[in-house]
Amino acid sequence: MNITRAVITAAGPAQRSLPLQQLVDFDGREKAALEILCAEATGAGIRSICIVVHPGDTERYRDATEGVAADVEFVEQEKPTGYADALLAARDFVGGDSFLHLVGDHVWVATRGESCAKVLVERAIAENALVSAVQPTRETKLPFFGTVGARRVEGSADLWEVQKVVEKPTPTLAEQELVVPGLRAGHYLCFFGMHVLTPGFVAMLEQEVARDDRDRGAEFAHALSRLAGQERVLALELPGQRYNLGEKYGILTAQLAMALGGDERDEVMARLIEVLGELRVASS
Amino acid sequence: MNITRAVITAAGPAQRSLPLQQLVDFDGREKAALEILCAEATGAGIRSICIVVHPGDTERYRDATEGVAADVEFVEQEKPTGYADALLAARDFVGGDSFLHLVGDHVWVATRGESCAKVLVERAIAENALVSAVQPTRETKLPFFGTVGARRVEGSADLWEVQKVVEKPTPTLAEQELVVPGLRAGHYLCFFGMHVLTPGFVAMLEQEVARDDRDRGAEFAHALSRLAGQERVLALELPGQRYNLGEKYGILTAQLAMALGGDERDEVMARLIEVLGELRVASS
Repeated sequence: MNITRAVITAAGPAQRSLPLQQLVDFDGREKAALEILCAEATGAGIRSICIVVHPGDTERYRDATEGVAADVEFVEQEKPTGYADALLAARDFVGGDSFLHLVGDHVWVATRGESCAKVLVERAIAENALVSAVQPTRETKLPFFGTVGARRVEGSADLWEVQKVVEKPTPTLAEQELVVPGLRAGHYLCFFGMHVLTPGFVAMLEQEVARDDRDRGAEFAHALSRLAGQERVLALELPGQRYNLGEKYGILTAQLAMALGGDERDEVMARLIEVLGELRVASS
Repeated sequence: MNITRAVITAAGPAQRSLPLQQLVDFDGREKAALEILCAEATGAGIRSICIVVHPGDTERYRDATEGVAADVEFVEQEKPTGYADALLAARDFVGGDSFLHLVGDHVWVATRGESCAKVLVERAIAENALVSAVQPTRETKLPFFGTVGARRVEGSADLWEVQKVVEKPTPTLAEQELVVPGLRAGHYLCFFGMHVLTPGFVAMLEQEVARDDRDRGAEFAHALSRLAGQERVLALELPGQRYNLGEKYGILTAQLAMALGGDERDEVMARLIEVLGELRVASS
């Protein structure tokens, strides 16, 4: 397995402004979120990136990728028919290869050593398999994530063999079918927003969207679940955190995490304390 | 004096993306920075807003003002010839009236009672004079602000009579000409990014930009300085803080201040602690 391509899905109508939000990157430079996403990919050895966007957004986004150290191309998703269709819009781009997939509304903060995408790609190559990054996540957050039922790979602390995937399960369903031995009570393995996907997965996803009774919004989870019955599908817990820019205070939280986890931690801490001081003085 | 119009300057080439940055407003709703600026104006009784933008930006910005409770019009500044020209591009809009002026790259957090712009407009009406909002500012920040030399209005704790204005003074010049009795040592009265401007000021600004030896970038300060020799020009210290979105970590700092100063303080504090916890756990 060789991973040189990445697909970023950024076509969701509700998330159209997110990739252009300005953030200060780990290196201390201000960039659009989209450029930071691309850097996550190129840092993992990616040479070509395909960004799937809402019709008409190509031009707005192209400026934000000028500094990216990879070939970047855009595909416009003709109709807002969901995530699975967005991913399949990059079908010609990926050809028959495995590829890195990043969702366009997250950023990731590695909390130990190398970047999240780099660790994921290296492990996928070593295992020669589809690998979805996951994070143990509190039950209260199940409504926001795809969730996997899995069994730990013997001898491994961070790798799991996927048995089932459910999109945004109810707590009841999760408790019945997705409990993973060895996790803290009340926690489930939820998607992290990055995957290394295989040609077999793309074929399975095509079948799911072609079904007369397609389950719109859950095709990705269904395809992964079905694939797990046929080939080895893995989940990897990464030393890092995901931050969803699209949730309320998501940009604030992501920027805080990036800044406090980076080289300029002291400067940002000083600002934080300054803000708290200004507000305290005024209210006293 | 009656103030129903506002001019927002947002045409600076380096700041073109700022008005579209998403922030959670004091009311807990996500909005573009531009909408928050407009709300600052409408909360002060403004009925008509003119936004001066970079050529071609009208369409991008119009969407962000759809929810604004005022008539909003756009004027494109044909060439990037500076702040004074941007302000004068709204000349026809303001006609012969006094008006509120907000810079397009700041937000303000009131730290006591009513919004900053509301207090400013009410005081300008009461004084029937040009009033520039100011904030005592550390000497180290002089390179970023217009700075006023002034004398306290007798019997007033927050109002000053302006004698001189200098754009971004050196510390030496400030110490020689802009020391204001009664301020903490090493502090100067610097602009806050909002003013109530008069027809007399507009006429003076027109003279400044028409000069053969125009001092590009300092015309606003020069016009105010000259006007102070002819009519009463006031500076008002407001109970609040300005946050410059354009400086590094400016968006983060502004959002933190807005969130920690608002109704959702507890929720944001909890997030802050969560982020610190995630990073601490990971690095331990």
